[in-house]
Amino acid sequence: MNRLKEDLRAILRSDQVSDSESILEQHSHDESYHTPVLPDVVVFPESTEDVVAVISYAAKQGVAVVPFGAGSSLEGHVIPVSGGISLDMMRMNQVLEVRPDDFLVRVQPGVLKDELNERLGRYGLFFPVDPGSNASLGGMAATNASGTTTVRYGAMRDNVRALEVVLPNGKVIQTSSLAPKSSSGYNITSLFVGSEGTLGVITELWLRVWGIPEQTVAARAVFSDVEHCVRAATAIVGAGIPVVRMELVDGPYIAAVNQYSGSDFPTLPTLFLEFHGNRRHVEADVEVAKEVIEDEGCTSFDFVTDEKARQDMWAARHHALYAFMHQYPGFGHMSTDVCVPVSKLPEAVLRAKELLSQTGVRGAIVGHVGDGNFHVSMAVDRGNPDDMARADAFNEQLVYTALSLGGTCTGEHGVGLGKRKYQQKEHGDALAVMQAIRAAVDPQHLMNPGKLVDPATTTTHT
Amino acid sequence: MNRLKEDLRAILRSDQVSDSESILEQHSHDESYHTPVLPDVVVFPESTEDVVAVISYAAKQGVAVVPFGAGSSLEGHVIPVSGGISLDMMRMNQVLEVRPDDFLVRVQPGVLKDELNERLGRYGLFFPVDPGSNASLGGMAATNASGTTTVRYGAMRDNVRALEVVLPNGKVIQTSSLAPKSSSGYNITSLFVGSEGTLGVITELWLRVWGIPEQTVAARAVFSDVEHCVRAATAIVGAGIPVVRMELVDGPYIAAVNQYSGSDFPTLPTLFLEFHGNRRHVEADVEVAKEVIEDEGCTSFDFVTDEKARQDMWAARHHALYAFMHQYPGFGHMSTDVCVPVSKLPEAVLRAKELLSQTGVRGAIVGHVGDGNFHVSMAVDRGNPDDMARADAFNEQLVYTALSLGGTCTGEHGVGLGKRKYQQKEHGDALAVMQAIRAAVDPQHLMNPGKLVDPATTTTHT
Repeated sequence: MNRLKEDLRAILRSDQVSDSESILEQHSHDESYHTPVLPDVVVFPESTEDVVAVISYAAKQGVAVVPFGAGSSLEGHVIPVSGGISLDMMRMNQVLEVRPDDFLVRVQPGVLKDELNERLGRYGLFFPVDPGSNASLGGMAATNASGTTTVRYGAMRDNVRALEVVLPNGKVIQTSSLAPKSSSGYNITSLFVGSEGTLGVITELWLRVWGIPEQTVAARAVFSDVEHCVRAATAIVGAGIPVVRMELVDGPYIAAVNQYSGSDFPTLPTLFLEFHGNRRHVEADVEVAKEVIEDEGCTSFDFVTDEKARQDMWAARHHALYAFMHQYPGFGHMSTDVCVPVSKLPEAVLRAKELLSQTGVRGAIVGHVGDGNFHVSMAVDRGNPDDMARADAFNEQLVYTALSLGGTCTGEHGVGLGKRKYQQKEHGDALAVMQAIRAAVDPQHLMNPGKLVDPATTTTHT
Repeated sequence: MNRLKEDLRAILRSDQVSDSESILEQHSHDESYHTPVLPDVVVFPESTEDVVAVISYAAKQGVAVVPFGAGSSLEGHVIPVSGGISLDMMRMNQVLEVRPDDFLVRVQPGVLKDELNERLGRYGLFFPVDPGSNASLGGMAATNASGTTTVRYGAMRDNVRALEVVLPNGKVIQTSSLAPKSSSGYNITSLFVGSEGTLGVITELWLRVWGIPEQTVAARAVFSDVEHCVRAATAIVGAGIPVVRMELVDGPYIAAVNQYSGSDFPTLPTLFLEFHGNRRHVEADVEVAKEVIEDEGCTSFDFVTDEKARQDMWAARHHALYAFMHQYPGFGHMSTDVCVPVSKLPEAVLRAKELLSQTGVRGAIVGHVGDGNFHVSMAVDRGNPDDMARADAFNEQLVYTALSLGGTCTGEHGVGLGKRKYQQKEHGDALAVMQAIRAAVDPQHLMNPGKLVDPATTTTHT
């Protein structure tokens, strides 16, 4: 593979191309249980032009290209399963433009979510999409990430106004205008969001941002069982309360958090809630939410108005996964990610609890219950095929449950490697449309091969 | 074309196929200025199976198919410019399923917007997307329609959860699951919404519905000039007020409305506003909005809390176009539909005013100013080529202005025939992606040919 490195060093600068062992290793995996694969070379573009040069070269040579961001994927998106070029986007990390009057910001894909929010703070603005880890915005768009605030602000797809993309043929496009709405041409912005690097490389993002609200109040509601907890969450949505965050954390998870963070939350199913807006809105929301929750059998309900305490509470929620995994040193992490219509959520969560107790899988439940999405985080022994098979079977059972309830195999983590096997079952004949689109945009199949939508094995679409 | 009719009558029932003169004429035009073209035959499917049968036949015979809904398009979408089959979807007009707990409803494409809302009322629900006419929901999805409530509830794209579509090859797909969010596969729902019948025929829609709010308050704010009026509207959005409707009606339009409806609104630029939610939210919103508007130089501000008066006010707004056209008997209607980032709206509207007075075009301005979208409604003399050319030149100037401001040629009416010539300029190399997608999904180019995205004249995408 010296040839590849030498060619690319002739195209870019030599410090933008590496095949050192540690760099290759670093780009061989993400935060998931999936088996690492080394790329042949890692390239660090610093501009759209750099990306064009690399993609054009790769297209000519027939080399695979896998965009790489913060490496926080949970489904193996960035693993270069066919080798080739790992395209590390993290040097493209500038906030290029803030337009407060339009509630828009233009960023490069390597900007981290927390960095953006730090920068936006001085304008009284924030970017709401809030996944578990401090991911890169390019990666978040590529997987249609969402997280704790989706119930109010939507997923990445709802917060990307337009993308600059380098296509597999080296052309640079802007996927749409900056108008707040449009009926012009096909909407390809929503197609590129969530395309997992299979249709091109995102080189710039126009994102919607929001005004920091006047007041924020968090709350914690404890329930005797998961079913009541989930029903309370759906009742809050049903009451039309514009809750900002509404997170279910199950008892075993709370225990792990307590142990890890030194907190002393009751080890029962708990809703972590957040409300924000102007003072009068928030007062009204909290009051109604309290009534609804008490009607659903909440055993305790506490407000958290102090800013430090509120941040601690959400830090505990965000650290829940690390706290859980901390109990199983050396184990890998596998997560389910089903999402179902909200009315079906109690049934799906109960099924997960049932499956956990039947199978003995080491798992705990946490969920963005306002949008029908929950995770069973599992600690898996990657060296033990039986253990892996058991976790995988659990995952599959839960996916089938979700599909039978009208849901999806992945609410926010994306397909990557782990959810490919469910694509046919979930999408049916719509999969052929997706395959035809992929083939039309990337006829050589060089962009992140082996992820998301497999090429059609037979011509199903004529 | 007897052959076509006979074949189709053999496939469906004879009363589902017509080539009577009056039926052909009725399916030759919409509400726009575009030149009518007769279809060869009109088919009235009554089920998805009927649509599959017709599409399969058309694919085999190489006959064009143009879906037809309420016929209220403003850009010639339903005009069968290549002849063939006009597929009238209006017999598929059932509300199939209401799922209040999931805030979802399943409808056939021929259900009219007002019919759906009548049906939903008994559940305490409503469907928010509110275009000017009582369009069919299939047509609204096909054009990504929006209207007066977009500033709060978004466009069709934001309110379609999933579609059932008969593809050009006769296969039936559901574009996505019913989960509130998903990162599974490509998002093709947003691709089919706004695809104007070019990728397949919508046979069912899963739509998001919303709880009817506790309280609704409308208001009317009058300004001395358009610039102040637009600035007030952007200030309201900037203040984070979740206004439901915020419509600019310019002085000449108000005069037409007064004459038509017998109302006596001051003939000055006016914002028609609506707020809704629970009582305390609405009180807070109205109070803040009033402050903001007064800061921006409003000359009078009136609340409309009485339900009858409120409905009259919005009826006047919805009849504005008819009122305006009423002044020019025998004239056709041409409408601009540019949409720009909100900060650029004052500039775009002032440019429109300037162009109106320069060109002498008979036009008046009305706009969904909260989302950067406004229309210049023009009365055009279809028999007079000079008059048509002048209106067209006006349209073009305004489109170029919008594109230079980062906007789009069409915010909600769609491309149809009228905005095709701006697609290359607006989308640049992204147009080749759209063309490739169209060719991949409809390789025979039989679905609504001549609309939206033209096939590539040369192979630009390899």
